[in-house]
Formats: sequence, C-alpha cells, structure tokens
Amino acid sequence: MATARAPRRKPAPPPRTRLDVDERRAQLLALGGTFFTRQAYDEVSIDDVAKAAGISKGLLYHYFPTKRDFYVAVIEQSARRLLEMTRAPDAGSPMDRLRAGLDGYLRYVQENGPAYAALLRGGIGNDAAVGRIVEDTRKRFIKRLLADVGVEQPGPRLRAALRGWLGFVEATAVDHVDHQDVDLGVLREMLVEMLLTAVRFAMTGPQAAGSNGWTPLVAG
Amino acid sequence: MATARAPRRKPAPPPRTRLDVDERRAQLLALGGTFFTRQAYDEVSIDDVAKAAGISKGLLYHYFPTKRDFYVAVIEQSARRLLEMTRAPDAGSPMDRLRAGLDGYLRYVQENGPAYAALLRGGIGNDAAVGRIVEDTRKRFIKRLLADVGVEQPGPRLRAALRGWLGFVEATAVDHVDHQDVDLGVLREMLVEMLLTAVRFAMTGPQAAGSNGWTPLVAG
Repeated sequence: MATARAPRRKPAPPPRTRLDVDERRAQLLALGGTFFTRQAYDEVSIDDVAKAAGISKGLLYHYFPTKRDFYVAVIEQSARRLLEMTRAPDAGSPMDRLRAGLDGYLRYVQENGPAYAALLRGGIGNDAAVGRIVEDTRKRFIKRLLADVGVEQPGPRLRAALRGWLGFVEATAVDHVDHQDVDLGVLREMLVEMLLTAVRFAMTGPQAAGSNGWTPLVAG
Repeated sequence: MATARAPRRKPAPPPRTRLDVDERRAQLLALGGTFFTRQAYDEVSIDDVAKAAGISKGLLYHYFPTKRDFYVAVIEQSARRLLEMTRAPDAGSPMDRLRAGLDGYLRYVQENGPAYAALLRGGIGNDAAVGRIVEDTRKRFIKRLLADVGVEQPGPRLRAALRGWLGFVEATAVDHVDHQDVDLGVLREMLVEMLLTAVRFAMTGPQAAGSNGWTPLVAG
C-alpha cells in the first residue's frame, strides 16, 4: 500500500533523475509524508522510500543520516503545513478568522488522518524531538489566537483555558479520525463554542450556566 | 533523588525481610511508583529499586521479567488508583458527584505531578501497552460519566464532545503540573463549565452564546 504512488516498473531499473539539492529534499519529504501517513514508523522501509524516489539508499542517507532524522524532518514539514493551513486571511472579523482557521485545521485532519492521530497519541517513533515539534506548534497556535484578540501575555487562567481548549481540539480530531461520523461544520461550531466558553470563564469566572446541572441536558 | 526513600546503609547489607508474594508485589509497585514519579523511565535503575526494597535484582526480575514489564505494572496500578480517587460517593446530585470526582482527579494530578504529565505527553517509555492503559482509563471515565446521567450508548456528537472534554481535562492537568498557578477550585469549576457546554452543544446544537464573538470577552 505504501508503494502505491511509486510507478510500477519491475524489469527496468528505476529512472534516476537529477534534481538539485532543494528539489531532492522536497521530493523526499513529500514521499516521506506519504509513507509515514500510510504505515506505522516501524513498518516504513527506507529501501522502499529510496526506490520510490528513484535514488540509492546511500543518497537518501546523504540527505537524512538516519530513519529517525528523516521522520523528524517529515514531521517538521507537516507541522509547517498545519500552521499554513490554519492561517486565516487577514480580512474579516475575529470570529470569521477563527472559523476559517478551524476549517483549515479540520481539512488538515482529514488529509493526514491516521498519521496525525498517531502523532498526537504518542507511541513508537515519537521521541523528545517529535514532542518538541508538537509542543512548539501548540505554542504558535496559542500565540496566534492571542494576537488575534490583542493579548500579548495571558494570565494563568487564560493560559490554562487555551491549553485546555487545544486539548479539546486535538482529542476531537483523534475521535474524528477514528469515527468520521460527525459533520465537520458541526465539529467546527463545537470548537468555536468551547473556545468562547473557555475564554469567558477565564475572564469572568463561573457563569450561571453551570448551576442548572447537567442531567436535564442529557435526558432532555 | 530517587533513592531518597531508601534508608542509608553503607557498610551493612540491606535487611532482607520475608514478605509473601502479594505483599512483595505490592511493595515493589509502590516503590516503582516513587521511582518512576521522580525520574524519567530511562534514568530509573532496577538495581536501585531492588536495593530500596532490600531484595536481590534477581528476585525483582522474578516478579517483573523486564524493566518494561515493571513499568507497565506500575502504570496499571496508577490507573487503578486514578479510577478509585475519582469515584464519587453514591449519594448526592449528579453535579455534586461530578464535582467530587473532579476534585479526586485534581488531587491525583497533584500527587503524581510530573509522572502523570509525562504519561500524557507520551515519549520514551510509552509504548502500545502503556497507550492501551491510558486509553482504557479514558473509556472507563466516559462510561462512568454516561452512567451517571443514564445514557448507555452515546450518539456520535455526544461521544465526540465527551472525548474532547477529556482532552481538555488532560491538557489543563499537564498545564497545572507545569505552572501550578491556578487555584484548584477554579480549575474544577472551569472543567464543570466546559463539560456542561460540551454536553449541551452535543444535545442541542450551537447556542446563542457563540454569536457574541470573542474579542469583547478578552478585551473586556
């Protein structure tokens, strides 16, 4: 399945094309994105990646000295793509921008499915370097959210609320990858409503909403 | 630091006490909890654990064949403890029970601090077996929450909302371990309010709350 993108060429040797260093690197990262999306880290074979790229294993190792280096570079690129896809256009109200950013995020989740879920779940292949990329991406998200509403340094409550909200976002993303049974527009509105509630709580404390109890909500 | 609980005994050999199998196992798990809470997985020395227990390394390996087996057993026990600590008394309204359960959870977070945060963050030491324990614990939580309000099989939206909420809870727990600057009572009320909002959204769809925009909330 992982080699599905590689053209079938049984008898003839793979065509070796000359690419400049940046092009080659970009090609390998794109291929890596495909491989690591379709297979678990342990199952990805560097041989297969090199074959699909039409280069020798040695040349691949010239760009990425180890499989781990290659994986970390692929994750880095994927994180950059996530940040790009969630960048809302400058125009529009903060709410429009928020919705546009969340739509971009949910598109990214759709595109990267199991690989993104595996990344968030941790596990094999995820080490300190990968953890730093994930954490750094979260920090950039929060910074962007805060910049959008003109806050530079959030207080403890707002920081905790935004951190919690990101946890909510990521957990529903993993749930969506597993189940795919909630409409993405509905999911986006749920994320919006949760953010508003979290921020409101951080700024003003508990609201009356909390006092109604939650049994009637579920039973009703 | 990890051996702080082990009595200092340089010249004399450690006293070897005879414990029955269950007692010994319980003793080792308790010790493991201390070691893995204070040190990263890679830093924990099985030699030190055996010394602290006053037994030979061989006997420890008799109970837990590998360091990994030992670690997984410690995590399993910690998960059981988490479920115990979050079990609310049968009496009281659903809201009282929810608050009692959350207070228990936040006590657990306080007690286990960095070890719990490391577990949630993934990384070294966390593999499929550990992931299953964490995931299984989440499922039990959600089942309990649903049982409390008389729902047996949640629909997709409610399932996604509860999953998201657990993500919120865990992310604020990690944030609390890192910063310890938000009052636990405030944090608990934030978790309550987020749960009510998530469940309400799942049952009735977007509320008017979402339409006010969020800039004024932050700026105001």
